[in-house]
Amino acid sequence: MSSFYIGLVHYPVLNKHNETVLTSVTNLDIHDIARSASTYGVNKYFIITPDKTQEEYILKIINFWQSEKGLTYNPDRSLALSKIIITDSIESSIKLITTQEEMQPIVISTTAKIMDNQITFDEIRNLHNENQPLLLLFGTGHGLTDSIHSAADYVLQPVNGVGDYNHLSVRSAVAIILDRISSAVYKGRN
Amino acid sequence: MSSFYIGLVHYPVLNKHNETVLTSVTNLDIHDIARSASTYGVNKYFIITPDKTQEEYILKIINFWQSEKGLTYNPDRSLALSKIIITDSIESSIKLITTQEEMQPIVISTTAKIMDNQITFDEIRNLHNENQPLLLLFGTGHGLTDSIHSAADYVLQPVNGVGDYNHLSVRSAVAIILDRISSAVYKGRN
Repeated sequence: MSSFYIGLVHYPVLNKHNETVLTSVTNLDIHDIARSASTYGVNKYFIITPDKTQEEYILKIINFWQSEKGLTYNPDRSLALSKIIITDSIESSIKLITTQEEMQPIVISTTAKIMDNQITFDEIRNLHNENQPLLLLFGTGHGLTDSIHSAADYVLQPVNGVGDYNHLSVRSAVAIILDRISSAVYKGRN
Repeated sequence: MSSFYIGLVHYPVLNKHNETVLTSVTNLDIHDIARSASTYGVNKYFIITPDKTQEEYILKIINFWQSEKGLTYNPDRSLALSKIIITDSIESSIKLITTQEEMQPIVISTTAKIMDNQITFDEIRNLHNENQPLLLLFGTGHGLTDSIHSAADYVLQPVNGVGDYNHLSVRSAVAIILDRISSAVYKGRN
Protein backbone atom coordinates (compact mmCIF):
# COMPACT_ATOMS: atom_id res chain seq x y z
CA MET A 1 0.00 0.00 0.00
CA SER A 2 1.21 3.48 -0.83
CA SER A 3 1.36 6.30 1.69
CA PHE A 4 -1.84 8.25 1.62
CA TYR A 5 -2.35 11.98 2.33
CA ILE A 6 -5.40 14.20 2.18
CA GLY A 7 -5.63 17.99 1.88
CA LEU A 8 -8.57 20.25 2.69
CA VAL A 9 -8.24 23.35 0.52
CA HIS A 10 -9.44 26.76 1.76
CA TYR A 11 -7.74 28.66 -1.08
CA PRO A 12 -8.20 28.75 -4.02
CA VAL A 13 -11.80 27.49 -3.98
CA LEU A 14 -15.05 28.62 -5.60
CA ASN A 15 -17.99 30.43 -4.03
CA LYS A 16 -21.58 30.03 -5.23
CA HIS A 17 -21.01 32.66 -7.94
CA ASN A 18 -18.09 30.65 -9.31
CA GLU A 19 -15.58 33.23 -8.08
CA THR A 20 -12.23 32.24 -6.56
CA VAL A 21 -12.21 32.90 -2.82
CA LEU A 22 -10.55 32.05 0.49
CA THR A 23 -12.89 30.23 2.89
CA SER A 24 -12.73 30.12 6.68
CA VAL A 25 -11.66 27.01 8.51
CA THR A 26 -14.53 25.44 10.46
CA ASN A 27 -14.10 23.65 13.75
CA LEU A 28 -15.91 20.48 12.69
CA ASP A 29 -13.89 20.17 9.47
CA ILE A 30 -10.83 19.96 11.69
CA HIS A 31 -12.28 17.33 14.03
CA ASP A 32 -14.46 15.18 11.78
CA ILE A 33 -11.91 14.85 8.99
CA ALA A 34 -9.03 14.15 11.42
CA ARG A 35 -11.15 11.36 12.95
CA SER A 36 -11.96 9.89 9.50
CA ALA A 37 -8.28 10.18 8.53
CA SER A 38 -7.27 8.26 11.66
CA THR A 39 -9.88 5.60 11.04
CA TYR A 40 -8.74 4.96 7.48
CA GLY A 41 -4.97 5.05 7.99
CA VAL A 42 -4.27 8.38 6.28
CA ASN A 43 -0.65 9.43 6.94
CA LYS A 44 -1.27 13.15 7.31
CA TYR A 45 -4.19 15.53 6.92
CA PHE A 46 -3.16 18.89 5.44
CA ILE A 47 -5.36 21.86 6.25
CA ILE A 48 -4.44 24.28 3.49
CA THR A 49 -4.86 28.02 4.07
CA PRO A 50 -2.55 30.97 3.41
CA ASP A 51 -4.36 32.99 6.10
CA LYS A 52 -2.24 33.41 9.24
CA THR A 53 -5.23 34.19 11.48
CA GLN A 54 -6.87 30.96 10.38
CA GLU A 55 -3.64 29.10 11.06
CA GLU A 56 -3.56 30.48 14.60
CA TYR A 57 -7.18 29.42 15.11
CA ILE A 58 -6.40 25.84 14.07
CA LEU A 59 -3.28 25.73 16.26
CA LYS A 60 -5.29 26.93 19.24
CA ILE A 61 -7.73 24.03 18.82
CA ILE A 62 -4.97 21.46 18.32
CA ASN A 63 -3.04 22.78 21.30
CA PHE A 64 -6.06 22.52 23.55
CA TRP A 65 -6.53 18.84 22.67
CA GLN A 66 -2.82 18.12 23.09
CA SER A 67 -2.77 19.84 26.50
CA GLU A 68 -3.11 17.86 29.71
CA LYS A 69 -6.74 18.94 29.98
CA GLY A 70 -7.59 17.82 26.45
CA LEU A 71 -5.59 14.61 26.71
CA THR A 72 -7.35 13.64 29.92
CA TYR A 73 -10.76 14.51 28.56
CA ASN A 74 -10.40 12.64 25.26
CA PRO A 75 -7.08 10.99 24.29
CA ASP A 76 -8.57 9.62 21.06
CA ARG A 77 -9.26 13.14 19.88
CA SER A 78 -5.68 14.19 20.55
CA LEU A 79 -4.48 11.21 18.51
CA ALA A 80 -6.69 12.18 15.57
CA LEU A 81 -5.59 15.81 15.63
CA SER A 82 -1.92 14.78 15.57
CA LYS A 83 -2.58 13.85 11.92
CA ILE A 84 -2.96 17.56 11.04
CA ILE A 85 -0.34 19.67 9.27
CA ILE A 86 -1.22 23.25 8.38
CA THR A 87 0.26 24.45 5.09
CA ASP A 88 -0.14 27.67 3.14
CA SER A 89 -0.67 26.09 -0.29
CA ILE A 90 -1.16 22.88 -2.23
CA GLU A 91 2.38 23.30 -3.57
CA SER A 92 3.96 23.36 -0.13
CA SER A 93 1.95 20.30 0.86
CA ILE A 94 3.33 18.47 -2.17
CA LYS A 95 6.85 19.61 -1.25
CA LEU A 96 6.49 18.28 2.29
CA ILE A 97 5.31 14.90 1.04
CA THR A 98 8.12 14.76 -1.53
CA THR A 99 10.72 15.43 1.17
CA GLN A 100 9.18 12.92 3.54
CA GLU A 101 8.69 10.15 0.99
CA GLU A 102 11.65 10.92 -1.30
CA MET A 103 9.13 10.65 -4.11
CA GLN A 104 6.53 13.01 -5.61
CA PRO A 105 2.93 12.18 -4.72
CA ILE A 106 0.26 11.46 -7.30
CA VAL A 107 -2.18 14.35 -6.89
CA ILE A 108 -5.88 13.52 -7.20
CA SER A 109 -8.53 16.22 -7.01
CA THR A 110 -12.16 15.58 -6.04
CA THR A 111 -15.39 17.22 -7.16
CA ALA A 112 -19.16 16.73 -7.00
CA LYS A 113 -19.33 17.50 -10.75
CA ILE A 114 -19.11 15.11 -13.66
CA MET A 115 -16.06 16.01 -15.74
CA ASP A 116 -14.14 14.45 -18.63
CA ASN A 117 -11.63 11.67 -17.91
CA GLN A 118 -12.39 11.18 -14.23
CA ILE A 119 -10.85 8.11 -12.63
CA THR A 120 -13.07 5.54 -10.96
CA PHE A 121 -12.91 4.26 -7.39
CA ASP A 122 -11.48 0.99 -8.72
CA GLU A 123 -8.67 2.91 -10.41
CA ILE A 124 -7.82 4.90 -7.30
CA ARG A 125 -7.76 1.68 -5.26
CA ASN A 126 -5.31 0.28 -7.81
CA LEU A 127 -3.12 3.38 -7.45
CA HIS A 128 -3.26 2.96 -3.68
CA ASN A 129 -1.94 -0.60 -4.07
CA GLU A 130 1.18 0.73 -5.85
CA ASN A 131 4.24 2.38 -4.38
CA GLN A 132 3.92 6.10 -5.12
CA PRO A 133 2.30 8.24 -2.38
CA LEU A 134 -1.16 9.69 -3.02
CA LEU A 135 -2.43 13.17 -2.18
CA LEU A 136 -6.21 13.53 -2.37
CA LEU A 137 -7.50 17.13 -2.45
CA PHE A 138 -10.93 18.23 -1.19
CA GLY A 139 -12.48 21.66 -1.69
CA THR A 140 -14.37 23.73 0.86
CA GLY A 141 -16.93 26.35 -0.25
CA HIS A 142 -18.35 25.36 -3.62
CA GLY A 143 -15.39 23.22 -4.56
CA LEU A 144 -11.90 23.27 -6.04
CA THR A 145 -11.07 25.64 -8.92
CA ASP A 146 -10.56 24.40 -12.48
CA SER A 147 -6.88 25.30 -12.21
CA ILE A 148 -6.48 22.72 -9.40
CA HIS A 149 -8.22 20.04 -11.45
CA SER A 150 -6.01 20.87 -14.46
CA ALA A 151 -2.84 20.71 -12.40
CA ALA A 152 -3.79 17.43 -10.71
CA ASP A 153 -2.66 14.10 -12.12
CA TYR A 154 -6.21 12.77 -11.89
CA VAL A 155 -9.71 13.96 -11.03
CA LEU A 156 -11.78 11.42 -9.07
CA GLN A 157 -15.34 10.76 -10.19
CA PRO A 158 -18.06 12.14 -7.89
CA VAL A 159 -19.73 10.07 -5.18
CA ASN A 160 -23.06 8.93 -6.60
CA GLY A 161 -25.95 8.40 -4.25
CA VAL A 162 -29.19 6.93 -5.48
CA GLY A 163 -30.85 9.97 -7.06
CA ASP A 164 -30.04 13.39 -8.48
CA TYR A 165 -29.37 15.11 -5.16
CA ASN A 166 -25.64 15.52 -4.85
CA HIS A 167 -24.83 18.00 -2.11
CA LEU A 168 -22.92 16.14 0.56
CA SER A 169 -20.96 18.16 3.09
CA VAL A 170 -17.19 17.99 2.56
CA ARG A 171 -16.98 16.12 5.88
CA SER A 172 -19.36 13.43 4.63
CA ALA A 173 -17.67 13.27 1.22
CA VAL A 174 -14.24 12.74 2.80
CA ALA A 175 -15.64 9.96 5.03
CA ILE A 176 -17.32 8.16 2.13
CA ILE A 177 -14.35 8.49 -0.23
CA LEU A 178 -11.87 7.22 2.39
CA ASP A 179 -14.19 4.31 3.11
CA ARG A 180 -14.49 3.46 -0.57
CA ILE A 181 -10.73 3.62 -1.11
CA SER A 182 -9.39 2.08 2.07
CA SER A 183 -12.06 0.18 3.79
CA ALA A 184 -12.04 -3.47 4.64
CA VAL A 185 -15.39 -3.76 2.84
CA TYR A 186 -13.53 -3.92 -0.40
CA LYS A 187 -11.38 -6.67 0.96
CA GLY A 188 -14.40 -8.77 1.88
CA ARG A 189 -14.04 -8.39 5.63
CA ASN A 190 -16.90 -6.06 6.50
CA MET B 1 -36.43 -1.59 -2.41
CA SER B 2 -37.97 -1.02 1.01
CA SER B 3 -38.66 2.42 2.46
CA PHE B 4 -35.74 3.56 4.50
CA TYR B 5 -35.75 5.81 7.58
CA ILE B 6 -32.98 6.99 9.89
CA GLY B 7 -33.19 8.33 13.43
CA LEU B 8 -30.62 10.36 15.34
CA VAL B 9 -31.17 9.66 19.03
CA HIS B 10 -30.48 12.35 21.66
CA TYR B 11 -32.16 10.39 24.46
CA PRO B 12 -31.51 7.84 25.84
CA VAL B 13 -27.79 7.78 24.96
CA LEU B 14 -24.58 7.20 26.91
CA ASN B 15 -22.00 9.73 28.07
CA LYS B 16 -18.31 8.91 28.52
CA HIS B 17 -18.97 7.50 32.00
CA ASN B 18 -21.54 5.07 30.55
CA GLU B 19 -24.42 6.96 32.16
CA THR B 20 -27.71 7.51 30.36
CA VAL B 21 -28.11 11.15 29.36
CA LEU B 22 -29.91 13.57 27.05
CA THR B 23 -27.56 15.25 24.55
CA SER B 24 -27.99 18.60 22.82
CA VAL B 25 -28.80 18.80 19.14
CA THR B 26 -25.93 20.26 17.12
CA ASN B 27 -26.40 22.41 14.07
CA LEU B 28 -24.14 20.34 11.81
CA ASP B 29 -25.86 17.08 12.76
CA ILE B 30 -29.04 18.62 11.39
CA HIS B 31 -27.46 19.80 8.12
CA ASP B 32 -24.88 17.12 7.31
CA ILE B 33 -27.14 14.18 8.03
CA ALA B 34 -30.08 15.73 6.13
CA ARG B 35 -27.78 16.19 3.12
CA SER B 36 -26.54 12.57 3.34
CA ALA B 37 -30.14 11.36 3.75
CA SER B 38 -31.16 13.25 0.59
CA THR B 39 -28.19 11.90 -1.34
CA TYR B 40 -28.97 8.29 -0.45
CA GLY B 41 -32.74 8.34 -0.89
CA VAL B 42 -33.70 8.10 2.78
CA ASN B 43 -37.46 8.69 3.17
CA LYS B 44 -37.35 10.65 6.41
CA TYR B 45 -34.70 11.67 8.93
CA PHE B 46 -36.03 11.61 12.52
CA ILE B 47 -34.28 13.85 15.01
CA ILE B 48 -35.25 12.28 18.31
CA THR B 49 -35.33 14.42 21.44
CA PRO B 50 -37.91 14.78 24.22
CA ASP B 51 -36.58 18.27 25.02
CA LYS B 52 -38.96 21.01 23.88
CA THR B 53 -36.27 23.71 23.86
CA GLN B 54 -34.16 21.56 21.54
CA GLU B 55 -37.18 21.00 19.33
CA GLU B 56 -37.71 24.76 19.04
CA TYR B 57 -34.04 25.22 18.14
CA ILE B 58 -34.31 22.68 15.31
CA LEU B 59 -37.55 24.22 14.04
CA LYS B 60 -35.94 27.66 13.98
CA ILE B 61 -33.15 26.36 11.74
CA ILE B 62 -35.52 24.49 9.43
CA ASN B 63 -37.84 27.49 9.20
CA PHE B 64 -34.98 29.78 8.23
CA TRP B 65 -34.00 27.51 5.34
CA GLN B 66 -37.62 27.13 4.23
CA SER B 67 -38.14 30.92 4.31
CA GLU B 68 -37.83 33.02 1.17
CA LYS B 69 -34.38 34.14 2.29
CA GLY B 70 -33.12 30.60 2.86
CA LEU B 71 -34.73 29.24 -0.28
CA THR B 72 -33.14 31.95 -2.41
CA TYR B 73 -29.74 31.50 -0.81
CA ASN B 74 -29.62 27.71 -1.07
CA PRO B 75 -32.63 25.76 -2.40
CA ASP B 76 -30.73 22.44 -2.13
CA ARG B 77 -30.39 22.93 1.60
CA SER B 78 -34.13 23.54 1.98
CA LEU B 79 -34.80 20.32 0.08
CA ALA B 80 -32.49 18.35 2.39
CA LEU B 81 -34.02 19.79 5.56
CA SER B 82 -37.52 18.87 4.37
CA LYS B 83 -36.49 15.26 5.16
CA ILE B 84 -36.50 16.06 8.89
CA ILE B 85 -39.21 15.06 11.35
CA ILE B 86 -38.70 15.86 15.03
CA THR B 87 -40.05 13.22 17.41
CA ASP B 88 -39.90 12.86 21.18
CA SER B 89 -38.90 9.17 21.26
CA ILE B 90 -37.89 6.14 19.25
CA GLU B 91 -41.33 4.67 19.93
CA SER B 92 -43.17 7.62 18.41
CA SER B 93 -40.87 7.46 15.36
CA ILE B 94 -41.80 3.80 14.92
CA LYS B 95 -45.50 4.68 15.28
CA LEU B 96 -45.26 7.36 12.60
CA ILE B 97 -43.58 4.96 10.17
CA THR B 98 -46.13 2.25 10.93
CA THR B 99 -49.00 4.64 10.19
CA GLN B 100 -47.36 5.92 7.02
CA GLU B 101 -46.34 2.52 5.65
CA GLU B 102 -49.18 0.42 7.11
CA MET B 103 -46.44 -1.92 8.26
CA GLN B 104 -44.04 -1.99 11.23
CA PRO B 105 -40.46 -1.08 10.39
CA ILE B 106 -37.53 -3.40 11.03
CA VAL B 107 -35.50 -1.50 13.66
CA ILE B 108 -31.71 -1.69 13.33
CA SER B 109 -29.42 -0.05 15.87
CA THR B 110 -25.83 0.99 15.15
CA THR B 111 -22.73 1.06 17.35
CA ALA B 112 -18.97 1.45 17.13
CA LYS B 113 -18.62 -1.56 19.43
CA ILE B 114 -18.31 -5.21 18.54
CA MET B 115 -21.27 -7.08 19.99
CA ASP B 116 -22.77 -10.55 19.68
CA ASN B 117 -24.97 -11.39 16.68
CA GLN B 118 -24.44 -8.18 14.71
CA ILE B 119 -25.72 -8.22 11.15
CA THR B 120 -23.34 -7.52 8.28
CA PHE B 121 -23.61 -4.86 5.59
CA ASP B 122 -24.52 -7.59 3.12
CA GLU B 123 -27.38 -8.66 5.34
CA ILE B 124 -28.73 -5.14 5.74
CA ARG B 125 -28.56 -4.67 1.96
CA ASN B 126 -30.62 -7.83 1.60
CA LEU B 127 -33.18 -6.49 4.08
CA HIS B 128 -33.29 -3.25 2.09
CA ASN B 129 -34.14 -5.25 -1.03
CA GLU B 130 -37.23 -6.67 0.68
CA ASN B 131 -40.58 -5.03 1.29
CA GLN B 132 -40.66 -4.11 4.99
CA PRO B 133 -39.54 -0.56 5.88
CA LEU B 134 -36.23 -0.10 7.72
CA LEU B 135 -35.45 2.27 10.58
CA LEU B 136 -31.76 2.71 11.28
CA LEU B 137 -30.90 4.30 14.66
CA PHE B 138 -27.73 6.31 15.36
CA GLY B 139 -26.58 7.49 18.77
CA THR B 140 -25.15 10.88 19.69
CA GLY B 141 -22.85 11.29 22.70
CA HIS B 142 -21.07 8.01 23.39
CA GLY B 143 -23.68 5.92 21.61
CA LEU B 144 -27.00 4.18 22.05
CA THR B 145 -27.90 2.49 25.35
CA ASP B 146 -27.97 -1.29 25.72
CA SER B 147 -31.75 -1.12 26.14
CA ILE B 148 -32.04 0.28 22.60
CA HIS B 149 -29.84 -2.49 21.18
CA SER B 150 -31.90 -5.11 23.06
CA ALA B 151 -35.19 -3.72 21.79
CA ALA B 152 -33.96 -3.46 18.18
CA ASP B 153 -34.58 -6.28 15.71
CA TYR B 154 -30.93 -6.18 14.68
CA VAL B 155 -27.68 -4.48 15.65
CA LEU B 156 -25.47 -3.52 12.68
CA GLN B 157 -21.78 -4.39 12.84
CA PRO B 158 -19.43 -1.40 13.29
CA VAL B 159 -17.74 0.37 10.40
CA ASN B 160 -14.20 -0.97 10.21
CA GLY B 161 -11.45 1.25 8.96
CA VAL B 162 -7.95 -0.09 8.42
CA GLY B 163 -6.58 -0.03 11.97
CA ASP B 164 -7.68 0.03 15.58
CA TYR B 165 -8.82 3.66 15.66
CA ASN B 166 -12.58 3.67 15.63
CA HIS B 167 -13.87 7.08 16.61
CA LEU B 168 -15.76 8.46 13.64
CA SER B 169 -18.13 11.35 14.22
CA VAL B 170 -21.80 10.34 14.01
CA ARG B 171 -22.04 12.53 10.88
CA SER B 172 -19.26 10.56 9.17
CA ALA B 173 -20.65 7.22 10.37
CA VAL B 174 -24.10 8.00 8.95
CA ALA B 175 -22.55 9.03 5.61
CA ILE B 176 -20.46 5.85 5.35
CA ILE B 177 -23.25 3.51 6.44
CA LEU B 178 -25.76 5.05 4.00
CA ASP B 179 -23.16 4.75 1.24
CA ARG B 180 -22.48 1.11 2.07
CA ILE B 181 -26.17 0.24 2.15
CA SER B 182 -27.56 2.30 -0.69
CA SER B 183 -24.82 3.38 -2.97
CA ALA B 184 -24.46 2.58 -6.62
CA VAL B 185 -20.95 1.29 -5.86
CA TYR B 186 -22.48 -1.93 -4.74
CA LYS B 187 -24.40 -2.15 -7.96
CA GLY B 188 -21.24 -1.84 -10.02
CA ARG B 189 -21.91 1.64 -11.35
CA ASN B 190 -19.47 3.78 -9.40
